[in-house]
Amino acid sequence: MTQNNALYAQSGGVTAVINATAASVIQSICNSQSINKLYLGLHGIVGVLQEELMDADELTTKELEQLRYSPGGAFGSCRYKLSKEKDFQRILQVFAAHGINYFFYNGGGDSQDTTYKLQQFADKHDYPLTCIGIPKTIDNDLPFTDTSPGFASAAKYIAISCLETSLDLKAMHSSSTKVFILETMGRNTGWLAAAAGLAKQHIILLPEVAFDKVKFLNKVEQIIQLHGYCCIAVAEGIKDKQGKLLTQSNSTDSFGHAQLGGVGNLLSQIIQAELKLKCHVAIADYMQRSARHIASKTDVQHAKKLGQHAVKLAETKHKGVMPILVRKQDTKGGISWHVTHVELNKVANIEKTVPNNFISRDGFNVTQACIDYLHPLIQGEDYPMYLNGLPYYLNLTIKLIPKKLPNYQV
Amino acid sequence: MTQNNALYAQSGGVTAVINATAASVIQSICNSQSINKLYLGLHGIVGVLQEELMDADELTTKELEQLRYSPGGAFGSCRYKLSKEKDFQRILQVFAAHGINYFFYNGGGDSQDTTYKLQQFADKHDYPLTCIGIPKTIDNDLPFTDTSPGFASAAKYIAISCLETSLDLKAMHSSSTKVFILETMGRNTGWLAAAAGLAKQHIILLPEVAFDKVKFLNKVEQIIQLHGYCCIAVAEGIKDKQGKLLTQSNSTDSFGHAQLGGVGNLLSQIIQAELKLKCHVAIADYMQRSARHIASKTDVQHAKKLGQHAVKLAETKHKGVMPILVRKQDTKGGISWHVTHVELNKVANIEKTVPNNFISRDGFNVTQACIDYLHPLIQGEDYPMYLNGLPYYLNLTIKLIPKKLPNYQV
Repeated sequence: MTQNNALYAQSGGVTAVINATAASVIQSICNSQSINKLYLGLHGIVGVLQEELMDADELTTKELEQLRYSPGGAFGSCRYKLSKEKDFQRILQVFAAHGINYFFYNGGGDSQDTTYKLQQFADKHDYPLTCIGIPKTIDNDLPFTDTSPGFASAAKYIAISCLETSLDLKAMHSSSTKVFILETMGRNTGWLAAAAGLAKQHIILLPEVAFDKVKFLNKVEQIIQLHGYCCIAVAEGIKDKQGKLLTQSNSTDSFGHAQLGGVGNLLSQIIQAELKLKCHVAIADYMQRSARHIASKTDVQHAKKLGQHAVKLAETKHKGVMPILVRKQDTKGGISWHVTHVELNKVANIEKTVPNNFISRDGFNVTQACIDYLHPLIQGEDYPMYLNGLPYYLNLTIKLIPKKLPNYQV
Repeated sequence: MTQNNALYAQSGGVTAVINATAASVIQSICNSQSINKLYLGLHGIVGVLQEELMDADELTTKELEQLRYSPGGAFGSCRYKLSKEKDFQRILQVFAAHGINYFFYNGGGDSQDTTYKLQQFADKHDYPLTCIGIPKTIDNDLPFTDTSPGFASAAKYIAISCLETSLDLKAMHSSSTKVFILETMGRNTGWLAAAAGLAKQHIILLPEVAFDKVKFLNKVEQIIQLHGYCCIAVAEGIKDKQGKLLTQSNSTDSFGHAQLGGVGNLLSQIIQAELKLKCHVAIADYMQRSARHIASKTDVQHAKKLGQHAVKLAETKHKGVMPILVRKQDTKGGISWHVTHVELNKVANIEKTVPNNFISRDGFNVTQACIDYLHPLIQGEDYPMYLNGLPYYLNLTIKLIPKKLPNYQV
């Protein structure tokens, strides 16, 4: 007999709006006829393996309200690749012990792959399980969906930061700094750096375009001659013609991805050495993906909508799927999105890169087509509540439910 | 015969609210009985030397409205030290050519020094000139005044960024990043790094405290044992026991200050090498001082108030002075500020550092007294106008008035 309980967990790098999706899932399951209890996994799939679960009913109304507008991942996230058969078995044991037959996993490409594999494993072992992946990624690299929650808010933050710093540089350049470089996230895809195009950044360097030092320095000189100063946005993952990262630290995460950082400083050194121009460098790092204070209202709405639809898909007997956003344009040019879904096996491990027609011919900027794609995503502001000058964010203390199984070594 | 025209110019690193002061000066002079025309110097004193002036009457009502909430320095700023007698003579020639008898210079410590020297020079040469310095600095290092416009908004941005990134790190730490480092501005004073205390950052490194690597690594380990993760804010200008900067590039500005940057990356390397903990680093750089999108309402009010008072001081026959803010506490603990003034000769070249009683005994954080000082400064939000998802900032095209003098080589 199935108990029809559900589990929701967060995975991969967190975003400004992943908790909005969480709140939406919690609310939808609260109102659901077919799903009973909801458990929340601590630190994503790792918490499931370790049977570290929280009962969603323990959340107070105030906490649930704060959850809607708080950045980070309130229940903890993880970077963990399910690979061993033992891990899959353990998950089903934990699910069985707590009557869990629905699994909602909120993450990016790697997490959708995990969700897909878990669905396959459960099906193979006749465990009644409905797995639904919910998209989330600041990288905007999930296929099929028009965009993924988290990206638009990070894009808005990048665009605003570029706009503000360009005014700063414009004021300073006559007797001081001539070049400002903002380093954005983006290992393989340049969507976040591309968002600098919304603020008309002079040069945008994408991982999709091989970096050529000579052409780059020529471009900087051209811009300096034209404007007197030069604003540059660079994705952390830009590569040379041989496909080698311009800069790379030695540490890697559990998926084998290299931990990047420092390309902004490298470009600054090149420019100062070759062109003798004073540079300033900012690295947005975690700030860009947690900047809930300036989240895109459109993004927040997408995050909620996808959470609701994930529950609806589960209720209507779909499994092994991910809800996606489809863009529509009305006759007056107005943009809106409707929600549908796609099979997880199609999603897993495909990275959506910035297409050629979004990149300018010289490779140093984005096209109007790219701006037309990005602009609707950053529409609207959705300010958090403030208390005493700071956003009144949720900093949840997790109360775990009693464990029923022996410990498990992750 | 004096024509009683005035000149306003911006100097040094710009801020999120220096244009609010500019708007306030323009408005006050517009309503003034004793001051006639207002000119705006392009790129601070450099524009004055080169006779590059704009007539304030050329600003449209819409531009003036946008000016109130736009970051950067709308008329251009500079880093230029007046040293040659020739420079001072030239300024008086330009002033005489355009009937300028009032000079309002909006800047930090170096600029107040410039203003003071110009007042002395004019007095010595019997040129009828009223020089008023208007405080502005994100570094909060001007003496006598409770705070200087620009600091509180940057402090609010730092505090919010720390709060948001700490929630991100909390979510990620169990299987990924353990340490997050935010590098703030601050060569000799740690006020901006101290603002991280508003968000309860675990470790705050100030230039006022000599950096000790062994004690620092011990502290990081302690925090990791206690919380599982560690949030660090570091001022760019921290120094070792010998007073040597931890990291320093070779370039210097025209005042001989070294251009800093990279201490966040250095700490990250130390932590990864010695403690084997994964780190992330963000460098706020220009973003912190141009983040008008999340300016402190209190700061905006201070910026306007000081602009108004500067004009009032000039109208009431004060000269060689700078308006300052004095904090008062009412019987219920409420904080407000009144405006008075101080002689420029007392201000010039004094840096207000973070006092000992604001620094915790172990030197790795700030005290409650520091928080009590900072908290009132970041109260209130003052959102800019938005258009199509981005702040609708002023990006002014300067229309210069015709020159009357021969060119001058700066």
